[in-house]
Amino acid sequence: MARWEPDSRGRLERAALALFGERGFENTTVAEIAARAGLTERTFFRYFADKREVLFGGAGALRELLVRTVDAAPATAEPLEVVVAAFEAAAAVLQERRAFSQQRQVVIAANAELREREVLKLALLGASVADALRRRGVAGTAASLTADTGIAIFRAAFEAWVEEAEEREFPQLIRDTFAELRAVAAGAETPGARLVPTAR
Amino acid sequence: MARWEPDSRGRLERAALALFGERGFENTTVAEIAARAGLTERTFFRYFADKREVLFGGAGALRELLVRTVDAAPATAEPLEVVVAAFEAAAAVLQERRAFSQQRQVVIAANAELREREVLKLALLGASVADALRRRGVAGTAASLTADTGIAIFRAAFEAWVEEAEEREFPQLIRDTFAELRAVAAGAETPGARLVPTAR
Repeated sequence: MARWEPDSRGRLERAALALFGERGFENTTVAEIAARAGLTERTFFRYFADKREVLFGGAGALRELLVRTVDAAPATAEPLEVVVAAFEAAAAVLQERRAFSQQRQVVIAANAELREREVLKLALLGASVADALRRRGVAGTAASLTADTGIAIFRAAFEAWVEEAEEREFPQLIRDTFAELRAVAAGAETPGARLVPTAR
Repeated sequence: MARWEPDSRGRLERAALALFGERGFENTTVAEIAARAGLTERTFFRYFADKREVLFGGAGALRELLVRTVDAAPATAEPLEVVVAAFEAAAAVLQERRAFSQQRQVVIAANAELREREVLKLALLGASVADALRRRGVAGTAASLTADTGIAIFRAAFEAWVEEAEEREFPQLIRDTFAELRAVAAGAETPGARLVPTAR
């Protein structure tokens, strides 16, 4: 006899993040998360397959939003602009969950397995964006180069955004980091012999 | 009574790669690799901790070369130039092992666990390069942005280099991919409202 529980998912997420932060991800059980949220384990499993999904359950929606934005862009748009626009759209969604993202980041940084999972998640997002670019006709290595550059921008902007002192919103940080990349790329030239050591 | 075996390491590598290619990484044993190389298992374990190390044992040397090149660059050099120079130096070393790299790539592409390991290896290389940039005084998110951009260039150049039809050498491909990134970044502008969908 399930009762209607207002915002069960949100309560479970907040309880899980609080417990992960207090005692570590590996030392937290689903039973404890449910108890902290004032809900049953059964309710937990209605929303999440396991405790890791509290941290990574959003990846699918993020990927869909990125791919949808790339797919919807006009055919004439520059690939890197399209990719940056996609990450800006993702950033706008994440902006509404800054506190969650900050707590999540602390939990992930403290656990080697979660850090690996996060790296793999970003790589999958990059691969999906590269595939979407290929469907637009971006040929050869340009698709992965452009998608990976988008990931590099996203990661650097994310790193800044989760800092408590940062006042800019996430979409703005994506734009600013993109501008930074353009400046960095424009200022650098192909390195000459003075920088590249000779192979033995 | 170990006999002197000329190029035991090379023979083991070639035997391992051939077997991984023929029957899959997961279906190959160390005993089979040693037998194919005409050597003992004991000799195998003098060079490699396990069969996965045949594929990933070079990561440490690659990381050292990248970090050493970044550390050795003049203080006035642009960070992205320094990073590209480091990857160019790494590419010069890998160029001498193109056949190995090509076979290795096929084996890794066929196995989900190895693909994940490769993604994580690149992320570690990127993190080491970012740390080396921070030691040079590159501040804030610029270090990870620049290092990740270097990884994006390296990955795209690598993708081209392992193609049989590609005639350019790997260091040249690093330079060409860097030029491609600069052109892509210069051509793109901050995407306007027409590309970024509004958050719900």
